[in-house]
Formats: sequence, structure tokens, C-alpha cells
Amino acid sequence: MSRYSAPLRDIRFTLFDVLDIESSVGRLGFDDAGRDTIDAVLEESARFCGTVLAPLNRVGDEHGVRFDQADGSVTTAPGFRDAYTQFAQGGWGGLAAPAEYGGMGLPHVLGMPLEEMIDAANLAWGNFPLLSHGAASALLHHGEQWQRDVFLTRLVSGEWTGTMCLTEPHCGTDLGLLRTRAEPGADGSHAITGTKIFITAGEHDLTPNIVHLVLARLPDAPAGSKGISLFVVPKFKVGRDGAMGERNALRCGAVEHKMGIHGSATCVMNFDGAQGWLVGQPHKGLAAMFTMMNTARLGVGMQGLGLSERAYQNALHYARERLQSRALSGAKFPDKPADPIIVQPDVRRMLLTCKALVEGGRALSYHAGLQVDIAAHGADEAERRQADDLLGFLTPIVKACLTEWGVECTYHALQCFGGHGYIAEHGMEQLARDARITTLYEGTTGIQALDLMGRKTMQLQGAGLKVFLGLVEAFCKAHADDSALSEFVGPLREKAAEWQALTMAIAKRAMGDPEEIGAAAYDYLFYSGYVALAYWWARSVAAADASSQPQAFKEAKRETARFYFARILPRTLAHKAAIDSGPAPLLALDEAAFDA
Amino acid sequence: MSRYSAPLRDIRFTLFDVLDIESSVGRLGFDDAGRDTIDAVLEESARFCGTVLAPLNRVGDEHGVRFDQADGSVTTAPGFRDAYTQFAQGGWGGLAAPAEYGGMGLPHVLGMPLEEMIDAANLAWGNFPLLSHGAASALLHHGEQWQRDVFLTRLVSGEWTGTMCLTEPHCGTDLGLLRTRAEPGADGSHAITGTKIFITAGEHDLTPNIVHLVLARLPDAPAGSKGISLFVVPKFKVGRDGAMGERNALRCGAVEHKMGIHGSATCVMNFDGAQGWLVGQPHKGLAAMFTMMNTARLGVGMQGLGLSERAYQNALHYARERLQSRALSGAKFPDKPADPIIVQPDVRRMLLTCKALVEGGRALSYHAGLQVDIAAHGADEAERRQADDLLGFLTPIVKACLTEWGVECTYHALQCFGGHGYIAEHGMEQLARDARITTLYEGTTGIQALDLMGRKTMQLQGAGLKVFLGLVEAFCKAHADDSALSEFVGPLREKAAEWQALTMAIAKRAMGDPEEIGAAAYDYLFYSGYVALAYWWARSVAAADASSQPQAFKEAKRETARFYFARILPRTLAHKAAIDSGPAPLLALDEAAFDA
Repeated sequence: MSRYSAPLRDIRFTLFDVLDIESSVGRLGFDDAGRDTIDAVLEESARFCGTVLAPLNRVGDEHGVRFDQADGSVTTAPGFRDAYTQFAQGGWGGLAAPAEYGGMGLPHVLGMPLEEMIDAANLAWGNFPLLSHGAASALLHHGEQWQRDVFLTRLVSGEWTGTMCLTEPHCGTDLGLLRTRAEPGADGSHAITGTKIFITAGEHDLTPNIVHLVLARLPDAPAGSKGISLFVVPKFKVGRDGAMGERNALRCGAVEHKMGIHGSATCVMNFDGAQGWLVGQPHKGLAAMFTMMNTARLGVGMQGLGLSERAYQNALHYARERLQSRALSGAKFPDKPADPIIVQPDVRRMLLTCKALVEGGRALSYHAGLQVDIAAHGADEAERRQADDLLGFLTPIVKACLTEWGVECTYHALQCFGGHGYIAEHGMEQLARDARITTLYEGTTGIQALDLMGRKTMQLQGAGLKVFLGLVEAFCKAHADDSALSEFVGPLREKAAEWQALTMAIAKRAMGDPEEIGAAAYDYLFYSGYVALAYWWARSVAAADASSQPQAFKEAKRETARFYFARILPRTLAHKAAIDSGPAPLLALDEAAFDA
Repeated sequence: MSRYSAPLRDIRFTLFDVLDIESSVGRLGFDDAGRDTIDAVLEESARFCGTVLAPLNRVGDEHGVRFDQADGSVTTAPGFRDAYTQFAQGGWGGLAAPAEYGGMGLPHVLGMPLEEMIDAANLAWGNFPLLSHGAASALLHHGEQWQRDVFLTRLVSGEWTGTMCLTEPHCGTDLGLLRTRAEPGADGSHAITGTKIFITAGEHDLTPNIVHLVLARLPDAPAGSKGISLFVVPKFKVGRDGAMGERNALRCGAVEHKMGIHGSATCVMNFDGAQGWLVGQPHKGLAAMFTMMNTARLGVGMQGLGLSERAYQNALHYARERLQSRALSGAKFPDKPADPIIVQPDVRRMLLTCKALVEGGRALSYHAGLQVDIAAHGADEAERRQADDLLGFLTPIVKACLTEWGVECTYHALQCFGGHGYIAEHGMEQLARDARITTLYEGTTGIQALDLMGRKTMQLQGAGLKVFLGLVEAFCKAHADDSALSEFVGPLREKAAEWQALTMAIAKRAMGDPEEIGAAAYDYLFYSGYVALAYWWARSVAAADASSQPQAFKEAKRETARFYFARILPRTLAHKAAIDSGPAPLLALDEAAFDA
């Protein structure tokens, strides 16, 4: 069984020292979110995740969810329900929800460490409350008042959970193809009919009701993605008075057998004329759904981060304990039968890769989370717009990089265990299997790359990139004469200039050939992620030096930054070369000749 | 369930057109290994693997192996035993074994495609006969005549299977720590006592007896790795007359629960004074064990290759069938509701990465396999020595690169399926789980890297590298004026020169700091692998152009080579930068400060 203890020191460092969160959120009018409150939230969530959720992680993997074909019910793993009840009673589901609907009204950025800890402790369990946020967000921004009163309050309190029903067997990425129908009824409701797949928490025994947010087509809908509407469809019908009525005409038809997150219920949901209520405008469902995408995608990024952190903790522990062979430069622990494997450079390479990606990714993602708050509560339109541009730009980077790095870090951590990593009892292989979903759901890595390159960079003319490069430039300027930071500031400045030039070059070529965008997208996303992380590592060293953290902590930040600049940042060389080669090497081969 | 059809066209191309195997093995005195024989072997093994083994792949994953605690017995998945009987009856286990012990006496290089096909079809099953090779090889080279007559013949015929019992709970990589004891008895046998773990095929129901090759210490053994001896310890005792007697004092204590290869029995083996016979000289067991390492490691490399091939076939099929979205440059299939995803550059990036690594890896590994034959049967000492140097140099590259690429290719292929890749029924996630063991057993990737950098490069003064660079130079010279190949020959020549210079630079620095070797090893191994593959891709294009292959095949080779040079070979830039940064970024951080 793998261990997990919330990394509160680094979380606090990131929030307080790197991001100066106190003054940031204070300025946004979150008067209740002072240091004491934030500390209390962090400590209590660390306790809940460490003592309640983490011990259930392997239970969920081994037990999975039980599906009863006879009545379509789903039974979760032992302990899951009780943990959920504690979660709801603690008010965790409403951390960042508005007080008027029963939430705590705390800034969104505080939800980032909470999600990181939940996902590290128990990703499969975390998927049950996760989608409630998306559903709540859709209702908050697009729902009628009665829908908010009836559904939103229950999602915020955790009394019910929510889902997002998008995918159908023949369409995932391309929702324009979807077929689920909505027929208007006499009472203003609609009868929803169709099959949805991959519905996370579509059915379970944690709460008495489940609120499905469903994409479907009205009878007069135009074809394609402009003819999709959003509906709220509860498992048990609910009147405008909030009273729960009879069972609605929807049912779980099957539960998928998956590579990992066994404790999570991934459902086929059959809607057979189920009563649903239109949310927002007809045919505008996709836009409404996309409002919740940003936060859902940041949320999945946190899953990658949480799993990486847990994997790292275990690999580090093992590397210190496992005695095997000697250091090449001579025994480091001559009194022991062999040296611990942490003396081996290659084991350190794997550990430091995890540490650099985890801690850098923490700063990157929390900062993105802060933009959600600024975009909503910034002092003026310009500040809000800027935050929104930045958030849009950073979201695909956080989602794709942190999940791919999650796959990478769980890989390295397992590798540190040697053959023991492959054995279930150590828990490392579960982390690797669980991590594998994160690069797929909420938009694959390829989709994130297209979003970044196509929409966020080309269509918006690099608005978000400009904001980010402004941050980099301001930092480099502020530390231009700081000899203690010059080893980082110089290379960072060069990379930032290269990033800008690379973006311009792609944009120019894309005017002549639209395939350029798809050909560059993946490598551009990772190139961007690695340069962004270089910025956060340089800032982290500066923040550590300026802080009251212990000396060992400051040195660890500096040495990890050095490792990052020396051994991870050069990955940009390969990504740049791939981008520079353009679409031809990808597109020249005839489709039929792939197995000629 | 994933599909698999042996890629006979590319296997034949690699053997006949790229490696000119007919004249190579003819020259070595394998008179029976003409084109007709080779073709017959390939076709029959393709049939066996495709129709017998492949359909059992998912059965093995779902059923696993059943362990009975009461009697220590292991029951394999339904169909495994029957498949094994067919395998033994077909004589497949003795393909490259000497005719005097019942083998077919064919060249080792022909075993490479056979192993590739077996592993692609059913890796878990393939692990049962796999270790028989190693055991047979140890007995052939180090056993007494009666041991060969009694045990080796049964391993070659497949009547019994073999194991290699090395690892103990506290030692894997560092066998010098092992504790299993061997007490001499009055009859010349030894009583073996100790616990071995991770014993592949340690117990099963496929054959009436199992031949364990066990490392243990004699009473007078010096400490460390120079005090280890090798013993043959059968499950049922066997007299010198070959007759099977009573049950030996050894027993399977548990079967591991693993991430993948569920159908394979990974056993804890308890020896409790079991009767064993010394193989080879006392205290020379490790050296004897290492004779079989090269071929066992090449074998694991083939596992990576086989899984990559199967993953690629399935991803390609899915990418052609799955309709989703449109090409960015406009609909390619306007008559369909959406374009197949193979029109997307990013999907092509993943597919072409698989194709480039699989086909390039095939040439790389088969060529290494051919060196086994030349090292044994070359015309003179110089030729044999050269082949042995090359084999030693290529073995860690084949083992580590092909298995890491196996992890990468099964990753990409799963990713092509989107969320469906995570669902068990498609079989893609099984390939990814199964692939994950290959970078761990028979020496982790880190161990391969140290073997390449430390032993094969530093200690042997780059003897193998020199041979390989000679091949590259000869090829470049031969095609110096070939304008059709200049796009490959130029960059290849540059990379080869860089490779040589890089090696010299590491060697020079290592004289001052032995940690340099461990710090460079991983990146040096992959740098080497990618440059080696560039050579094989350039040669493959040349071989295709000179062959009678269809035009589409020739174009596919050329376009895939272009993709490789444009988008994969640049990974060497990142590896070189990491090497150039030296040991400091890896070693500076104090062990205690990793979680400061």
C-alpha cells in the first residue's frame, strides 16, 4: 500500500511565498480568506485526505464498483459512502461556491490544493464529488432561479452529486455528431432519449439523488455543434418546490471495466424519455458546457499533480531504504551491507524529475487557479479580461502537461522500485494505472494542444501568451542585476524570446497552410509547458531566498531548479526541432500506406 | 480484444532485404537455413502465434494463474497448456538449439522474429518457454555431460521448462548480497536452502517437471559476488539415468499479483534442502549466469518490439475507422459524417512514432541477433571477437530501448483510442500494462545503461561502438554520391561523428570523476539508440529502393524515415544536453533535502 502525507510545507510555500496569495485574494474582496483561515482549511483538508481518503485508495482499486444488472444500481467500495458523508458534512464540496447557495465563498485558488490532496489520496473516490463542480457551475451561470434553488444548493451542500453527460458511443471529441434527443412536453419540461457513455459517477449509492447535466438536440435543432442544448435531468424527478418525486426514466446500463480508477463508477447511461429541464438558451448548450470546461480541466490537471506527488513520496522513501550495490565513487554507507539506491545518479535522475515537475507544476497550476478568481473579481474590466486570457492560455497547458507529467512521474516512481514496482501490494502500479486516464478524459492531450495552438494562440492572437511573457519579462527585469539568480534569469530570458519567435513563425506558416497548426500543436504545448515551468522554477528560487523557510529548503529549491534547467528544459530543443520540421513529415504518407 | 496478425512482409524485408540473411547465415555454415526453410519457419510461426496464442491473450489476462496454498500448485489459464503442448510438439523451443540435443540447429537470428511474434501474440504465455532458453544455455555451456543428457534434452524438446532463480527479497540488482545456501551431500549433490522471488514460470501445470537453475552460496564461499555458485534443481528429482523420482524439497510459496502479464506465473520459490547439482565451477555461478544474460536480454527486447507492433496494428485500424471531426484543411471524406481521425496530424504523429520505432527497432534487434550466430560460428577469431564486441554493445541498447519504446508505443496506441483505450474490452490497456514489466526484469533500464556506459564502453574502450561506427561509415561512404539518400546520409554522418566525440568527452571526464558514468549512462544509452536507429532507417530506405518490394512499400519506408529524422532523432539534442551538464545537477542535493 502506498503512503501519502499532504506536502503542506510546499503547498504553503507556493501559496504564500511564491504567489503571495494573501494579498492577491485580499485585493479581490475575499475578506474572510486571511492566513489563519487558509491555514485552517489546508490543515483540515490534509487531515481528511490523509486519514480518511488515503487508506481507502487500495480498497477502491481492489473492490471496484459493483453493478447490478437487475436494477441498474451501483454499489461503491466499502468506506466510500462514509467518506463522502464526512466530505459533505465538512462542506468541502462548497469551498469556492457562493455563500448565497450555501457555499463557503472562499477563492477558487484554495480549491487547487484541496483537489491536489483529494486526488493524491484517492483519485477514484475524488471523481464522485468532482463533476458536481461542473454541474453546479453550469447551473450557476446558465440555470433559471428555481433550478439554482432546487439543484445548485444540493450540489453545493453535497446532498446530491452531479454529472456531465456529453459523450456518446460514436462521438467524444466531436460533439457535433451527438444524437440524444429532447422532445418538449406540455409542462415546460423535455423528454430526453439517448445513450451516453463514460459518465463519471453516473450511478452510485453515495447520495439519494444524482443531477445529470445532459447535452441533447431539440427537434428544431440545426445540425452539428450549433444545435446542441443543455438539460438538467435528475435521477429522481424534482418539482419546482424542491420535493423529490418518482424515479425518472433513466438508468445505468453498464459499468465499464477499466485499466484503473476501479473505485470510480464509469457508467453507460440510458435515457428513455427522462424528464429534463432546459438550462440556458436553446442550441447554446455547447457554449454553456464550455464554461465549466476550464475549471474541470484544471481539476484534471490537479489529478496529475496529486498522483505525481504521491508517487514521488513513495519512490523517495523506497530509494532511501533499499540497500543495493555501492556508489561508483565508493561506498557512501560503509557500515551498511550496501548503499541505499538514492546514491545512484540514475535513481536521483528519476526522483529529481518527479520533484521538479511536481513542485514546478504546483506553482504553475495554483497560479492558473488564481486567474479564475481574478477573472471573476478583478478590480476592473481590463484586469478581468487579462486574467481570463491568461486562464484560457494556461488551462490546456495545465491539463495536458500536468497529466502527461503525472504519467511520467508515476512511471519513474514505479521504476525506482525495480521489479517490486510491478507488484500490486506496493501500490505503485495502481498510481500508474490511475494516472493513465488523466490524459484521456476532459479532452485528450491532442485536444488540449489544438485548443492551445488553434483557439488560444491563433484565434486570440496570442493574448494569453502576451500576458504570460509580460510576467516573465517583469521578473527578469526585476532580477536583472541579481547575481544569485543570473544562472536562471539569463536562460529564461532567452527561452522566452525563442518562445515568442517560435509562436510568430508558426502563425506565419499557418496562414499559408492550416495543417501547420495541427502539426505543431503537440510540440508547441510541451515547449510552452517547459518554458512556463522554467519561469516558475526561477521564481520559486527567488521566493525561497526571500522567505523565512529553512536553509535546507532554500537549497533544495535551488538545486532542483538547477536540475530542471540542466536536464529537463533541454527537452524544448527536441520539441522545437519537431515544430520547425512542419507538417510534411506527418502528412506525406498516404493513409493506405501505413501498413503497405 | 486487440487484433494481431504477424507482419510477415516487414519481417521478411528486414531479414532478406536489409540484413541479407541468406548469405550471412549461409556463410556461417547453416546449410539448411535457405530461403525456403526460413520462409516455412516464418509462416508456420505466424500461423501458430496468430491462431493459437493470440486468442488466448485476453483469457490469460482475465483468468490469471490460480495458486493453491494447500499444495503449492499453480494452474494456468484455460488453453495455455494445450498451446504449450502444440509449441513443444512443433519443436519451437529448440529452434536454435544444437541438433545433438534434439534442436533444429537453425541460426539464432531466426529466433528473433519467432520471439517477436510469440510476445506480440501472448506475452504472458511466452514467459513459460522463455526461460527454458536461458537454462538450456547455461547447461550447454557449463553443465556436465550427464546434466546435458538429462536436463538439456528435455528443455530443448519442451518436455520440461526451465527457470532462472536469481532474485531474493533483499537483493535483485546486487546479487552479491544473496543468501541462499548450498550444503554438500555425500552423493555429490547439494542441499539448497533459501527463498527466491520473482521466479517466472517457477510453478505451473504445463509440464511434468521444472528445471530450476539456482544461484546459491557454498559453505566456503567468499563474500560478495565472487562466492556464488550455480545449481540445477529439478522440481522432481532426476537420477543420472534420467528417470524422474520423488518430489524435491522445493515449493511455490506464493504467486505475485501484478500490474500485467497476469497469465504468467511469477512465483516465490522456497527451497528447503532441495537436492541440486553444481553446474560449472564453484563460485563461478554469476559468470555462468551472465552467459545467458545477453540472449535473455535480447529476448526481453523482442517483447517490447512485439507489443509495440501489436499496439500499432490496433491503433492504425482504429484511426482509420473512427470518424470524428474534420481535417483542419477541409473535409477529406465529405461523404462521411466526419473524417477518420487518421487525417489528424497529431494522430499521425503517434502512429508514425510507433511505425518508426517498430520497424527501425526490428532491424536493430535482428541485426543484434545475427551477431550471436557470427560470434559463435564466424570464420575466424577476429570476426567472432568483433561480433561479440558488437553484440555486447548492442544488447543493452536493444533491451532498454525496445522495452522503453514498447512502453511508449503502447502508450501512443492507447491514446489514439481516446477514452476507449482505457476500457478493458479493447485490449489496449492490457498491452500497456504488459509492456510495463519489460523495462524492469532482466535488469532495469538503469542497469542496462550502466552496462552500456560502464562495462561495454568504458571498460572495453568502446570496442563495440567502434564496430558499429565502422558499419555507419561504410554505409555513408557507399552512398556518398547517392542523391536519393543524401537527405539521410548527411545527418547520419554528422550524428555518428557527434556520437564518437560525445563518447570520448564522457570517457575523459570519467577519468576525473567516476560519477560521470552513472550520470551520463541513461541519456547516453538513448542517445546511442536513436543514432543507431537513424542508421537502420537510412539503410532500410536504401534496401527498399534496391529491392523488388512494391512502390507503396518503398514510399512508406522513405516517408517513415523522413518522419524519423525530422521528429524522433532530435530527441538526441535533449539527451546530449543532459549528458553535457555532468553529474552536479544530479548529485548536489543532499539526500536528506529531497523532501526538505
